Amino acid sequence: MAEAPSAAVLIIGDEILSGRTKDKNIGFIADTLTDIGVDLMEVRIVGDTEADIVAAVKALSERYDFVFTSGGIGPTHDDITADSVAKAFGVSIDVDPRAREMLLAFWKTRGVEPNESRLRMARIPHGATLITNSVSVAPGFRIGNVFVMAGVPAILQAMMDEVVKELPASQPVLSETIEAHRPEGEIAVPARDVQAAHPGVRIGSYPYHDGRRFVTRLVLRSRDAKALAAARAALEAALAAI
Amino acid sequence: MAEAPSAAVLIIGDEILSGRTKDKNIGFIADTLTDIGVDLMEVRIVGDTEADIVAAVKALSERYDFVFTSGGIGPTHDDITADSVAKAFGVSIDVDPRAREMLLAFWKTRGVEPNESRLRMARIPHGATLITNSVSVAPGFRIGNVFVMAGVPAILQAMMDEVVKELPASQPVLSETIEAHRPEGEIAVPARDVQAAHPGVRIGSYPYHDGRRFVTRLVLRSRDAKALAAARAALEAALAAI
Repeated sequence: MAEAPSAAVLIIGDEILSGRTKDKNIGFIADTLTDIGVDLMEVRIVGDTEADIVAAVKALSERYDFVFTSGGIGPTHDDITADSVAKAFGVSIDVDPRAREMLLAFWKTRGVEPNESRLRMARIPHGATLITNSVSVAPGFRIGNVFVMAGVPAILQAMMDEVVKELPASQPVLSETIEAHRPEGEIAVPARDVQAAHPGVRIGSYPYHDGRRFVTRLVLRSRDAKALAAARAALEAALAAI
Repeated sequence: MAEAPSAAVLIIGDEILSGRTKDKNIGFIADTLTDIGVDLMEVRIVGDTEADIVAAVKALSERYDFVFTSGGIGPTHDDITADSVAKAFGVSIDVDPRAREMLLAFWKTRGVEPNESRLRMARIPHGATLITNSVSVAPGFRIGNVFVMAGVPAILQAMMDEVVKELPASQPVLSETIEAHRPEGEIAVPARDVQAAHPGVRIGSYPYHDGRRFVTRLVLRSRDAKALAAARAALEAALAAI
């Protein structure tokens, strides 16, 4: 099997760091990438500060196959993501004729007055392709391996639906869940031993409170269905033998 | 006013990156830090992979005053945070007598059998101080400027209650919210102009759908109550003049 593509997510916004807004985009992007077989390796959240956005875009786009950003592409003074991404790639940025046309046509049907602030949403780095926004038209864009999307969850989700069409198909990660009904301290040795014997499967151990005590959910993950089934059988046998 | 301390959060766990578990700790830590006047500057999420944890701990602990980690300190094979943090600080790690005593005493009252896996939870880097866990006893720890806590939200929250006692008191950020009842494209110019005239206040613009259309919530933030009140008055006047 070919190696799966790797990815990072970059969430941009002071309101997430202050706690005022609770992020809903990380989980959505993570689920989407898992479904199509792209490995999400890292997430970062930074504020609306140019130097921080530029540094994060550079670091993540050099390290991973794809980067997905969310936030900071609206019309107000604190929306500096498009300009920061242009800077990270060393390209110019200006109002893009394609984006401008889309917005003017949409505003016309709605009786919305174009103005300089609104046209900021048509600023697209030179060389970028647009990402359609079926909710509110103002597009995202792709430059290099970076996909720049809105922060509003409904818009982010609509853009992500477009973006996945551009990503290479890969073998999705399969997973199996075993409810151990026991604390982690009781299942740690069998879990460790089965993990050591099945290196092609990644076994995660997740404690949660069942209302009475902390018990364990074991999740096995692999792209190889046979390896996954073998590890599951081994783990079930090991748990039954405790 | 003295400069506020800066902080970063590092969430550790494959289950967050796969989307299987939705993070609940970032928002809680963000709210707590805002309440006590510590500026959260960056968040990262990495998987249960030693090299990634070590690199993130080094980068964040060098750059910010405090780092708060969550996840990977249980008894199973995928709990590698304590060892990774020890490696990042270049110190040894072993079962800590204080942590061991706490755990043995707690287990005795519960009839829990100590075993090698469970005692992994007493592994603490050399030179670290312990963070009390009022939920399930197994402690977190502080080494240098890094606070290492559990990933289970109830435990993380109990540990964070202890941690805040160790942080320096600072002037909390005050905030004011203005509901603009208009789309961002209509308020962008007044918001930008008031921002330019009031550099000691940070004005954020947050669009949301009110059921009919996208409208804007404006949030003004500052540690200076007078500056905040002046910016609010100026912004309200500017909005009324549209």
